[in-house]
Amino acid sequence: MLEKLKEEVCAANLELVARGVVIYTWGNVSGIDREKGLIVIKPSGVDYSGMTPDDMVVVDLQTGNVAEGKWKPSSDTRTHLELYRRFPEIGGVTHTHSVNAIAFAQAGKDIPALGTTHADYFYGPIPCTRPLTQQEVEDDYELNTGRVIAETILERQIEPLSVPGIIVRNHGPFTWGKDAAASVYHAVVMEQVAEMALKTLLLNPDATIDQYVLDKHYMRKHGPKAYYGQG
Amino acid sequence: MLEKLKEEVCAANLELVARGVVIYTWGNVSGIDREKGLIVIKPSGVDYSGMTPDDMVVVDLQTGNVAEGKWKPSSDTRTHLELYRRFPEIGGVTHTHSVNAIAFAQAGKDIPALGTTHADYFYGPIPCTRPLTQQEVEDDYELNTGRVIAETILERQIEPLSVPGIIVRNHGPFTWGKDAAASVYHAVVMEQVAEMALKTLLLNPDATIDQYVLDKHYMRKHGPKAYYGQG
Amino acid sequence: MLEKLKEEVCAANLELVARGVVIYTWGNVSGIDREKGLIVIKPSGVDYSGMTPDDMVVVDLQTGNVAEGKWKPSSDTRTHLELYRRFPEIGGVTHTHSVNAIAFAQAGKDIPALGTTHADYFYGPIPCTRPLTQQEVEDDYELNTGRVIAETILERQIEPLSVPGIIVRNHGPFTWGKDAAASVYHAVVMEQVAEMALKTLLLNPDATIDQYVLDKHYMRKHGPKAYYGQG
Amino acid sequence: MLEKLKEEVCAANLELVARGVVIYTWGNVSGIDREKGLIVIKPSGVDYSGMTPDDMVVVDLQTGNVAEGKWKPSSDTRTHLELYRRFPEIGGVTHTHSVNAIAFAQAGKDIPALGTTHADYFYGPIPCTRPLTQQEVEDDYELNTGRVIAETILERQIEPLSVPGIIVRNHGPFTWGKDAAASVYHAVVMEQVAEMALKTLLLNPDATIDQYVLDKHYMRKHGPKAYYGQG
Repeated sequence: MLEKLKEEVCAANLELVARGVVIYTWGNVSGIDREKGLIVIKPSGVDYSGMTPDDMVVVDLQTGNVAEGKWKPSSDTRTHLELYRRFPEIGGVTHTHSVNAIAFAQAGKDIPALGTTHADYFYGPIPCTRPLTQQEVEDDYELNTGRVIAETILERQIEPLSVPGIIVRNHGPFTWGKDAAASVYHAVVMEQVAEMALKTLLLNPDATIDQYVLDKHYMRKHGPKAYYGQG
Repeated sequence: MLEKLKEEVCAANLELVARGVVIYTWGNVSGIDREKGLIVIKPSGVDYSGMTPDDMVVVDLQTGNVAEGKWKPSSDTRTHLELYRRFPEIGGVTHTHSVNAIAFAQAGKDIPALGTTHADYFYGPIPCTRPLTQQEVEDDYELNTGRVIAETILERQIEPLSVPGIIVRNHGPFTWGKDAAASVYHAVVMEQVAEMALKTLLLNPDATIDQYVLDKHYMRKHGPKAYYGQG
Repeated sequence: MLEKLKEEVCAANLELVARGVVIYTWGNVSGIDREKGLIVIKPSGVDYSGMTPDDMVVVDLQTGNVAEGKWKPSSDTRTHLELYRRFPEIGGVTHTHSVNAIAFAQAGKDIPALGTTHADYFYGPIPCTRPLTQQEVEDDYELNTGRVIAETILERQIEPLSVPGIIVRNHGPFTWGKDAAASVYHAVVMEQVAEMALKTLLLNPDATIDQYVLDKHYMRKHGPKAYYGQG
Repeated sequence: MLEKLKEEVCAANLELVARGVVIYTWGNVSGIDREKGLIVIKPSGVDYSGMTPDDMVVVDLQTGNVAEGKWKPSSDTRTHLELYRRFPEIGGVTHTHSVNAIAFAQAGKDIPALGTTHADYFYGPIPCTRPLTQQEVEDDYELNTGRVIAETILERQIEPLSVPGIIVRNHGPFTWGKDAAASVYHAVVMEQVAEMALKTLLLNPDATIDQYVLDKHYMRKHGPKAYYGQG
């Protein structure tokens, strides 16, 4: 079942390695079939080398039960599921351990919007969530990770596709997009803009950008009058 | 038309990826045929993999209209055109998103001339422009980006080929040269000297260099008595 | 003798190069056959290119004498032996010269546990040992390096497999695991978390993490109720 | 003439690119035949791709005249010659533009000896020279670069082969060794220890190391009782 989606999700997972944002078995990508209410996700703790679409696991969006697959799904599956349930507009989710994004997550700071590379993809700072409480960690860690992401997005009144990623405090980046490939793309971009931001802050701790430049760059790619690309 | 220039510009664009100064569809290189008054530039938002000379777009220097091409030209085309119009001595223009150069652009600081690697190619600091005004951004962002570059070069009384690049505030590097390949070369060098400068400032915020060392290194490569290379 | 272990240890040494944590002849990996009381280790100062299992050296755990091999064993052999003698639960040991881990060793600071990537493998800070005394260096440097590692592990009341590595003051990382491959894995992870920690501290010198998050991440991979991977 | 030396020097130059310490035409390596009083050096401003032993240039040690070669020798040739004349024990010289070593050169600071990786090859800090005077730069820049290197080595009472490299203020690293390959090896090691030192100083500006650890590590590789390697 879902053979095409499995191919897409498998390719998106392999792209994580090719782009240098994960090593070993770290990270995971999923994609969703909204009509069937099923997601396809990387298996837990399985190495990327030799991974094929057949290794992907199908999980029910509502129950979290495995619908098909020879492996256990990623241990972060409940985080992915919560994001899909809370944000119907997203079609793919990625989690990585990329170094510069994690530095901000561990520092407990948003990745600030300081330039146009950032603004081309993220319309404002990339939020860092609050830490989970002990209760949240002990009760259902992965589900509550998804909930604290959703809470942050809602509190900050963000459209999920206009800021397609977040960093979870002390943990690391989750990104999303219209499909699995887009969520990986945003993970790679987040790592680049995190490195740019870190180095900028080393040169000038008070660096800022005018809001109208952020507006312009985001809108020339994504607004109704977007003119970047072949439209 | 302009088959040879298309080959050169296509190769120069692919070199951006090979040298690690862009990812995905980021960045763009153009070259000019001064006699015909036409530039050749990368298409907008098209991936580098599989790109061929046939994908390049020909644009009229004065009108900005597409003279030939199956794609829309780079969204930064009007910036390139303005640079060609203002500086008749340049034959190629490159825009990248290289991390260390962008760190200076986001910090709002010139890339200071601190060593001989810098002086071999850039005769003095690499300027950071002022931010564009809201009016400039909203009226014609890309054209005004070219204008603020030209304004900075003129205000600082710089010969464009003696400091063959600049960083646009909160945006990133534009470089130029006698042809498309030279503009890419300067983009790669700028990224290297930006990384050197950033690390130097971390070790010694007051680092400087004597002007006569800058003079010597620039002149041994570029002055009338240059003796570097096979001359 | 020990042909299978030689293959494993040789492959683990080559993995050091492939993962970018050593250059030239730097670093070394060993593995042990507990029943026979013999370890297999990289030869001293021999380049990785073209290295085969036949180049590995077999050394007696108790006497330190070479039991088989055409080369001298690594100059760090006595450090490895001491670790195997003191910690019967470990099956492989790795020493590297990876840059970020060494930065902490040279700074004389533990690699602090600041995030879940760290906690997935190291249950608490990665200790930095005290410096060896002049007497210890002059008497038997490599043996005493092993002793100061063991002293630190014991003083801090650490289970060796729950914090499978350490940094020796002014020197660098030693890691271990259930076998040679696992010790290399931990060396690569240590380098990643060291880079994350360094960058975190640049952004926020007071960064911390709640103990219950460390507990959760370590336990979901390693505790009796571990649920990461295909277990 | 000197066909074997040309092969060695060509291979050593290509190794600079393979090890990532130069790009484009940057850097240069030479080797010497002491009996004949001739050095072999990279041509000036020629790209590494496709370079063959036949491209190397033979230069007379005393006169600096080209003895054989189809190209002009490296513009840094007079620096190399001065080092060979002042230090009869060296057989090869390398100049690179490696980023971290240059950061120290631009900062005007020695690369401090903070760990055993450094001590394995450099017996004490890697000195940063004083700046050349305007007179020195204008009179004979490259020759005086060699002289200020020699002056620094002599003033600090260093055995050239025990600290086989230096950084020239605002310029960058020169390294040497028993032959061309050894000088490249030391250039690569210097870049690694420079990166380690820079990151160490970011973590702890007061980092130091005990002299007896430096003594031990240098001597176990290089002293009369050296026991590293297969010697």
